[in-house]
Amino acid sequence: MSCSEDLTLLLSNSTDAANYICNKFTDSNYAINNTYLLFSAYLVFIMQCGFAMLCAGAVRKKNAVNIMLTNVMDAAAGAISYYLFGFAFAFGQPSNGYIGKHFFALKDIPSASANFDYSNFLYQWAFAIAAAGITSGSIAERTRFTAYLIYSFFLTGFVYPVLSHWYWSPNGWANPARGPGDALLFDSGVIDFAGSGVVHMVGGIAGFWGAFIEGPRIGRFGPNTEKPRGHNTALLVLGTFVLWFGWYGFNPGSFLIINKTYGASGSFYGQWSAIGRTAVTTTLAGSAAGLTTLVAKKYLTSTWGLADVCNGVLGGFAAITGGCSVVEPWAAIICGVISAFVLIGLNMLSEKFEFDDPLEAAQLHGGCGAWGMLFTSLFAKKQFVNEVFGERPGSRPHGLFMGGGGKLFGAHIVAILVNIGWVTITMAPLFLVLQYFDLLRVPANHEIDGMDATHHDGPAYHEGIEVRPSGRYVGSAVVPQP
Amino acid sequence: MSCSEDLTLLLSNSTDAANYICNKFTDSNYAINNTYLLFSAYLVFIMQCGFAMLCAGAVRKKNAVNIMLTNVMDAAAGAISYYLFGFAFAFGQPSNGYIGKHFFALKDIPSASANFDYSNFLYQWAFAIAAAGITSGSIAERTRFTAYLIYSFFLTGFVYPVLSHWYWSPNGWANPARGPGDALLFDSGVIDFAGSGVVHMVGGIAGFWGAFIEGPRIGRFGPNTEKPRGHNTALLVLGTFVLWFGWYGFNPGSFLIINKTYGASGSFYGQWSAIGRTAVTTTLAGSAAGLTTLVAKKYLTSTWGLADVCNGVLGGFAAITGGCSVVEPWAAIICGVISAFVLIGLNMLSEKFEFDDPLEAAQLHGGCGAWGMLFTSLFAKKQFVNEVFGERPGSRPHGLFMGGGGKLFGAHIVAILVNIGWVTITMAPLFLVLQYFDLLRVPANHEIDGMDATHHDGPAYHEGIEVRPSGRYVGSAVVPQP
Amino acid sequence: MSCSEDLTLLLSNSTDAANYICNKFTDSNYAINNTYLLFSAYLVFIMQCGFAMLCAGAVRKKNAVNIMLTNVMDAAAGAISYYLFGFAFAFGQPSNGYIGKHFFALKDIPSASANFDYSNFLYQWAFAIAAAGITSGSIAERTRFTAYLIYSFFLTGFVYPVLSHWYWSPNGWANPARGPGDALLFDSGVIDFAGSGVVHMVGGIAGFWGAFIEGPRIGRFGPNTEKPRGHNTALLVLGTFVLWFGWYGFNPGSFLIINKTYGASGSFYGQWSAIGRTAVTTTLAGSAAGLTTLVAKKYLTSTWGLADVCNGVLGGFAAITGGCSVVEPWAAIICGVISAFVLIGLNMLSEKFEFDDPLEAAQLHGGCGAWGMLFTSLFAKKQFVNEVFGERPGSRPHGLFMGGGGKLFGAHIVAILVNIGWVTITMAPLFLVLQYFDLLRVPANHEIDGMDATHHDGPAYHEGIEVRPSGRYVGSAVVPQP
Repeated sequence: MSCSEDLTLLLSNSTDAANYICNKFTDSNYAINNTYLLFSAYLVFIMQCGFAMLCAGAVRKKNAVNIMLTNVMDAAAGAISYYLFGFAFAFGQPSNGYIGKHFFALKDIPSASANFDYSNFLYQWAFAIAAAGITSGSIAERTRFTAYLIYSFFLTGFVYPVLSHWYWSPNGWANPARGPGDALLFDSGVIDFAGSGVVHMVGGIAGFWGAFIEGPRIGRFGPNTEKPRGHNTALLVLGTFVLWFGWYGFNPGSFLIINKTYGASGSFYGQWSAIGRTAVTTTLAGSAAGLTTLVAKKYLTSTWGLADVCNGVLGGFAAITGGCSVVEPWAAIICGVISAFVLIGLNMLSEKFEFDDPLEAAQLHGGCGAWGMLFTSLFAKKQFVNEVFGERPGSRPHGLFMGGGGKLFGAHIVAILVNIGWVTITMAPLFLVLQYFDLLRVPANHEIDGMDATHHDGPAYHEGIEVRPSGRYVGSAVVPQP
Repeated sequence: MSCSEDLTLLLSNSTDAANYICNKFTDSNYAINNTYLLFSAYLVFIMQCGFAMLCAGAVRKKNAVNIMLTNVMDAAAGAISYYLFGFAFAFGQPSNGYIGKHFFALKDIPSASANFDYSNFLYQWAFAIAAAGITSGSIAERTRFTAYLIYSFFLTGFVYPVLSHWYWSPNGWANPARGPGDALLFDSGVIDFAGSGVVHMVGGIAGFWGAFIEGPRIGRFGPNTEKPRGHNTALLVLGTFVLWFGWYGFNPGSFLIINKTYGASGSFYGQWSAIGRTAVTTTLAGSAAGLTTLVAKKYLTSTWGLADVCNGVLGGFAAITGGCSVVEPWAAIICGVISAFVLIGLNMLSEKFEFDDPLEAAQLHGGCGAWGMLFTSLFAKKQFVNEVFGERPGSRPHGLFMGGGGKLFGAHIVAILVNIGWVTITMAPLFLVLQYFDLLRVPANHEIDGMDATHHDGPAYHEGIEVRPSGRYVGSAVVPQP
Repeated sequence: MSCSEDLTLLLSNSTDAANYICNKFTDSNYAINNTYLLFSAYLVFIMQCGFAMLCAGAVRKKNAVNIMLTNVMDAAAGAISYYLFGFAFAFGQPSNGYIGKHFFALKDIPSASANFDYSNFLYQWAFAIAAAGITSGSIAERTRFTAYLIYSFFLTGFVYPVLSHWYWSPNGWANPARGPGDALLFDSGVIDFAGSGVVHMVGGIAGFWGAFIEGPRIGRFGPNTEKPRGHNTALLVLGTFVLWFGWYGFNPGSFLIINKTYGASGSFYGQWSAIGRTAVTTTLAGSAAGLTTLVAKKYLTSTWGLADVCNGVLGGFAAITGGCSVVEPWAAIICGVISAFVLIGLNMLSEKFEFDDPLEAAQLHGGCGAWGMLFTSLFAKKQFVNEVFGERPGSRPHGLFMGGGGKLFGAHIVAILVNIGWVTITMAPLFLVLQYFDLLRVPANHEIDGMDATHHDGPAYHEGIEVRPSGRYVGSAVVPQP
C-alpha cells in the first residue's frame, strides 16, 4: 500500500499514526545526516591530496617522490590500521574514559546503541590520516621510508586514536559532552571541536620530536648555506587551496549531523545555522591570518611572499579548528591575526635554535594548534557552547574574555600539557629507538643525492630528451640508412 | 518524551498535531537546503583554485608566483572586505533598490525575516572573489601588487556588491523576483540567474579597462615578436577542470534551496528537477563551446589546440551562466556554439587592435558574458521563468524566439549597457589614478626580469641542483677529505 | 495558508491529512535524493580531471598536450553524443532487454514513469566519459587525434551505452533488479553494481585492442631500449588522489537514492547505511591493493615505488567497483590484495609478450575489472544482495564462498565472456578499419618528435627564457642605447 493509504488507516488510531509519521521522519533524518556526513568525509579525505601537493611543492625536487609516497601510504596503510584497531581504540563503545575496546575490524557496526555507522568510521579515518600527514612534513627529505612506515602505523593506529578518545568519545574523560551522570573536567571539559589539539598538536608535536631527534638536513645551517627552497610553488598553492576546500569538511563537518534543533522545533535557527557559522569562522580565521602574514612579511622582507602567505592561511585554519563552532565571526578574525604572529615568531625561534622542519609543520600545526586551544578558552560564547555541547545543570564555563570564568581556561591549559605529554612519551622514545638501530635517517650520501634516486623508483620528473635515431621512417618502423 | 509519544498526545488536538508535524518539516527543510547550499558554496570556492591554476599555467614562468598570490589574496582579503561591508551593500535588508545598508560584519545574521543565514554569506562571498579573479587575469604579468590589492578591495567590497544588489537583492531595481508590490523593469526584470552579467561581465569589463590603460606587455606586439605562451599547459587543464567542477556549485547552486515545489506538493517535478536541468544546460553549453572551438581552430590553424579548447569551454560556461535555469538543454547547445565564435572573433579583434589580455579574460568573461545575457533574452522559456522567478499577474515576458515578446530583450539591452557603464565609471578612473601616481605598472626592467624575482619571494620553481660537497660521509656528518 | 493552517483543517479528514503529509514527505525525499545524486555526479565528473592529470603525468613530456586534450574532449564531445543518443540507448524506457529507444536528446525527461530526472542523466554521462578516458591511456603517445575522436564517439555513444543497458536498465537482460515478471539470468542476474565490467572492462578491453593493433611505441622493446618513464610524478599522484575522491561518487553514488528503508520504516539501518558501507569497502580495497603493491614491489625491485603504488590503488578500486555494495569490509581487503597481484602479473605478461599500454590501462581496468566480477560472485553476502537488489521469490543466488551456490558465479562467467565479446566485435574492427586507411597511428617521425609539436598547439611547457633587450627602460618603453 502507498504511504497515503497506510496513513489514512492509521490516522484513525493516534498511536499508530504517530508511529508511522515519526518513523518517516526518522528515515529522512538518517538520509539527510548521512548525506551531510559522507560528503564532509570526502572533503576531509581530499585534504590528503592537499598535503601531498603542499609537501611535494615545499621540498626539493630530489625528494618529491619520497614525500608523496608517504602521503599516499598515510591514506592506504592508515585505512587498514584504523579499520583493524585505531577506530576501536578511539570510539569503541561501551568503554572507559581512557581507551575504547570494541568495534575492532568494524565488528558490530552499524551500531544503533552507539549511534555509529559506516559514514562515521570513514569520517574519523580521514581525520586520523591527516595527523600522520602533518608529521611527515616535519621529517621530510631525510627519513628512511621504513621508519616512516613504522611511526605512521603507530601514530594512526594508537597514539592519535587514544588521545582522540579522551576528547571526542562519549566516554572520554575530557569530553565536554559526556553523559549527564559523568563529571566534567573542571565542570567544563575541553572544547576541541574539530581538533586544534587532537589533530594539529598531535601531528605537530610528533613532527617536532622527529625533526629534533633527526637533526637538520645537511647544509641547512652553518656558514655559506641558505634555506633550501621548495621546488614548485604551483604545487604549494594547489595544496593550500585543496586543504582550504577540505577544511570545510573538517570543521563544519565535525557536527556530524545537520538536522538538529536548538530548542523548539520549527525555528529558523538550528544546527544547520551553527554549521554555516562554523564555515564562516573557519574562512575568516584563515583569511585574516593570510592577510596578516602578507603585510607582516612585506614589512620584514620587503617582498610579497606567496609561500609565507600559504602557510599563514593554513596556520589560521589550524588555530580556529578547536573553537570554530563556539566563537563569533569577529573573534575568528582575532584568532587568525594572532596565529600569523605565532607562526612567524616560532619560525624565527626555529631559525635561531637551528631546528629544521622543512614544512614548518611543528610550528604551524603544533604552535598554531596550541594557540587555538588557548583562543577557544578565551573567546567561547556561552550560547554557542550550550547549543553545541548541550546544557548542563548550573552554568557551563565558557570563554574567559566572554565572562565565562577561568575554568575553561584551566581545562585547556591541562589539555595542552596532556597533549604535549602524551605525544612526547609515546613518539619521542619511538624515534630514539629507530635512531639507535640506525633506521631513522638515510645515509648522508643518499640525502645529498636525493631520496627519489636512492630509495624510490627514480626522480619525480623525466625530461625524456630522446635522440632521434638515424634512419628513414617507414610506417612505424625505423629503417637504417644504407 | 519521544517524537511518537509527543505526537500521539497531540493527534487528539488537530492544531497542536499540525504544528508539531509542520515544525518537523521545517527543521528537515532547513537541514536539506543548508546541506545543498553549503556544499554548493564549497564548490564555488574551489573555483578560486581553478583560477589560480589556470592563470599560473597561462602566464610565463617568471610571473607565476605573482598571479597565484593574487588568487590567494582574492579569497583571503576578499573574505575580510566582504564580511565587513561587501555583503551589506549587496544583500543588506531592508534596503532600497540601489544599495544595501544592513548586515555589516554579519550583524543580525542569521536573520529569519530576511531569510539569510551564514551559508548564504559564504556562498555570496565565493561569488564575489570570482569577479576579482577574472580581472587579475587581464592585467597579469605587468601590474604592481599594491595596485592589485587596491582594485581588488574596491571591486570585491563595492563595485561588485552594489551591482549584484540591483539584480539579486529582493529589493534590487532590476530583480525579476521583486516583491509583488514592486514594479519590474519593463514588466520583466533582468534574468541573470547566476551572473553572466553580474559576475562575468563585471570581472571582464574591469579587466578590459585595466589592460587597456596599462597597455600591452613589453614585446607583445610589433615586429619580430610573438605572443608569449603560457608556461604550463598541465596547470591550465587542471584549472579548467576545477572550474568546470566548481561551476556545478555556481549555476545549479544559485537556486539556493532545493526543497521547493512548483505547484502542488507531492509531484515528481519541483525545484530539484530544475536544478538537475540547470546542471545539464551548464554541461552542454560548455561542451558545445569546447567542441566548436576544437573544430573551428583546426580549420583556422590546422592544429588541434588544447589551450583554445579550454578557453572555449570556459566561454561557454560564462555565457550559459545567466540563463542556465530558464532554457531547454537544446538551447544551451546553441548558446555554447555561438559563444565559441564570440570568443574567437573578439580574440581576432584584440589582436588587430593590439589589445593585450594575457588570459583573454575581457574577451571571455566580458564578451561571452554579454552574449549570455542576449541569449537568455532570446531563449528563456515561459514555464521555466514562471517557476524559477514566480508567477506575476499577467504574463511574464520571456525569450523573444520563444514567443515571449521584446520586453525581456529590452531589459537585457538596458542591463548590458548599465553593467558596462557602472564598471566603467568606477573602475576606469581608479586605474587612471593608479597610473597617474605610477602605482599601476611595474618598471620595464622588472617586467622583463619577471615579477617573481623582483617583487616576490623568488621564482616559482627551484631546480635545486646541488654540488656534492667533497668529503666522505659518516652518518649524517660530512667529514672533510684529508 | 501556512502548512500548519492547512494541516489543521485537513486533520479532521483522515484522507486529506494523509495526502497532505505524504506529499510533503515526497517533496523532501526528492530534495534529499537529488542532492545526494547531484553531488555524487559532480564527484564522478571530477574523475575526468583525475584521468587527465594521471595520464599527463604518465606519458612523456612531448605528448602531454595530446593526452590531456583527449580527456577534455571525452567530457565535451561525450556530453553531446550522450545527450543526443547514448543515454537513449542505455536507459531509454520503455525498452526491450537489449537496447533503449527513448529519451533521445532528453525528450520526455524528466519522466515520472521511468523515474529518470536530469540528475540521473548527468550522473550517467559522467560514467560514460570515464570509459573513454580509460581507453585513451592504452593508446597514448602514438594515436592520431582523428582516430581518437572517432573511437571516442563510437565508444561513448554506442558500445558503452548498449552494454550498460544490459546490466543497468530496468529492462536489461542481465539486470538482477528486473521487474518481478521478468526472468533473471540463471535466476540471479549479474551483480555489477558500479561497473567493474560495464565501465572498467569495457574501457580496458577497448584499450587492449587499440594498443594491440597499433603495436608498441617506437623504442619500447628490443635491444638497448628501456621503458619510457612518465614525465611528471606529481601529476600522477594528483590524478590518483582526484580519482580516489571521485570514486566516492562512482561507487556509493551508484545507489542513486539515499532515502530508502530496508524493511520497516524508522530503523537505524537503511540504504544510508549501505551507502556508508560501500564507501568503506571501496576505501579498504584500494588501500589494501596499494599496501600490497608497495610490499610486493619492494620485494621484486628493492625500491619503494610510487607510480606502482598509485596504479595498485586504482586497480583495487576497479576491482571492488562491481561488488562494493554487497560485500563485507573484510572481503574488500581480500579483493584489494588479490587485485594487486593480478595487476603485477598482467604487467609481467605484457612485458613478456611485448604488449605496450603506456598507462597499463588494459591490465588495470580490464584485468582488475574482470577479477572484480569474479570476486563479487564469490563473496557477495545474501543479506546485502537482497537489500540492494530487492528480494525475489525463492532465495537469491549469492557468493559461492558465502554459501550462495554457483549460479551467481556462472552468471558472472557469462558476463565476463559477453563483455569481452561485445567490445571485441565492435571495437577491434573499428581499430582495424582505421588502421587500414592509415588513420590510426601517427607517422614515425611525428611519434619521435612528439605529438604536441607535430599535431597540437606546441609543447606543454614553455621555459620562456627571454633575452633582455639591450637599451634603457623608460616607463614601459624600451629606448635603444645610443
